[in-house]
Amino acid sequence: MSGLAKQGDRGRTVGTGASGDTTLYADKVAEDALLGSLKEIDGVRVLSEEAGIVGEGHVLAIVDPLDGSSNFEKGIPFYCTSVAITEGDQLGDITVGVVRDLVTGDAYSAVRGGGARKNGHAIRTSSVDVASSAVVGVDLSRSGSDLVSRLGPLISGVKRQVHLGANALELCFLAEGRTDAFVDIRGQIRITDFAAAYLVAKEAGAVFSDERGSELKPSFDLEHRFSFVASGGESLHRQILDLCLARGR
Amino acid sequence: MSGLAKQGDRGRTVGTGASGDTTLYADKVAEDALLGSLKEIDGVRVLSEEAGIVGEGHVLAIVDPLDGSSNFEKGIPFYCTSVAITEGDQLGDITVGVVRDLVTGDAYSAVRGGGARKNGHAIRTSSVDVASSAVVGVDLSRSGSDLVSRLGPLISGVKRQVHLGANALELCFLAEGRTDAFVDIRGQIRITDFAAAYLVAKEAGAVFSDERGSELKPSFDLEHRFSFVASGGESLHRQILDLCLARGR
Repeated sequence: MSGLAKQGDRGRTVGTGASGDTTLYADKVAEDALLGSLKEIDGVRVLSEEAGIVGEGHVLAIVDPLDGSSNFEKGIPFYCTSVAITEGDQLGDITVGVVRDLVTGDAYSAVRGGGARKNGHAIRTSSVDVASSAVVGVDLSRSGSDLVSRLGPLISGVKRQVHLGANALELCFLAEGRTDAFVDIRGQIRITDFAAAYLVAKEAGAVFSDERGSELKPSFDLEHRFSFVASGGESLHRQILDLCLARGR
Repeated sequence: MSGLAKQGDRGRTVGTGASGDTTLYADKVAEDALLGSLKEIDGVRVLSEEAGIVGEGHVLAIVDPLDGSSNFEKGIPFYCTSVAITEGDQLGDITVGVVRDLVTGDAYSAVRGGGARKNGHAIRTSSVDVASSAVVGVDLSRSGSDLVSRLGPLISGVKRQVHLGANALELCFLAEGRTDAFVDIRGQIRITDFAAAYLVAKEAGAVFSDERGSELKPSFDLEHRFSFVASGGESLHRQILDLCLARGR
């Protein structure tokens, strides 16, 4: 990623990506590098945030070349690359997920049914099972005042709220027990931000649902935006969901 | 800090500090190391989170050996040591502030009237002067639902909310323009968490006040807890204060 590190280019934009978001120069450089590697593999089509679908093949690589690009732009040292591999169109079909922390170089990986690893060593979610002891990532960015208020019971009911600004990497922190849950119910996340880190956290023991406890069924395209709650284990997950819904009772 | 890095000791507690908070083993190790260095200097008394006032002398060192100890405990790589030097009892009397990022080794420093530096190079706050473009650190941890709701207009009115979990280091991020403002109006911060980073951010161009725009006048002891708002410049500061007070209108 040395091509990304030039300070003067950090905030440069180069148009609008397939998802409709503004594309940073850094996003483009990262995507070009990643697509350049993937297109040499026969039978792989790629779904990426800036380029949309590229190539043809029965195997789909769902990639986010630079998750946390706003952090990168500001110099906050917390951003990553995500790659997930699937032959189907459901979360349960994802067979491989890899998330690379581009600051530390740490590689988080998972193969479906084979557990999760960080730099080759097995990782597990934390054993924290009481909400009041839990450190919880909550993404509030661009939330309306109503959503912030709705999250009041959650934020006041847990030990600490953090938000580091790169959701895929924060899900990997959940996977290794650095946080105990992660909540993003803004309805803004896309499959490219999520697929690889989902498998890493799932294989490490995390429990996922939407904020009402229903199974996640995201579409594998750039149009569908969704919400999710992830916790280190079942008991904590039920408490986190109760706190997310507390205002509505 | 190699003595701190043993995973098994991360969550170990060793009683209650002078401030009334639970003392982590890591806090104690860090404090012992820092006090050991400072006590060799004649005429310096030390105010520290765990030990309270130690020694005698007309020069006061205000120290937080391990800010972000909850991050340290969980393995989140974001914590620091702070040391401020003063001969008076007002914020304006602080002559030297040093904050050391214990993960990267980066040293943020300032001498009153001499500007702020990171690893010896001059740093300045960002030039972002519109709230809707601002990345804002907001500490919501252990906030009641009412405070979270009050912060709704702020969080929805800025570009992104982040909270990395070590307020002194986040103020240094503000000082170098990695964030554009920082808001902690929980009434929980103490001078030990604040003094060194205050001088770094102030000398880098940051503007400070309480949430109503009044001058900060914290007592240099462990009993006084206060709130603050810090912004990269005056214009942004007025907008951030307006957003903090929007609910009360």
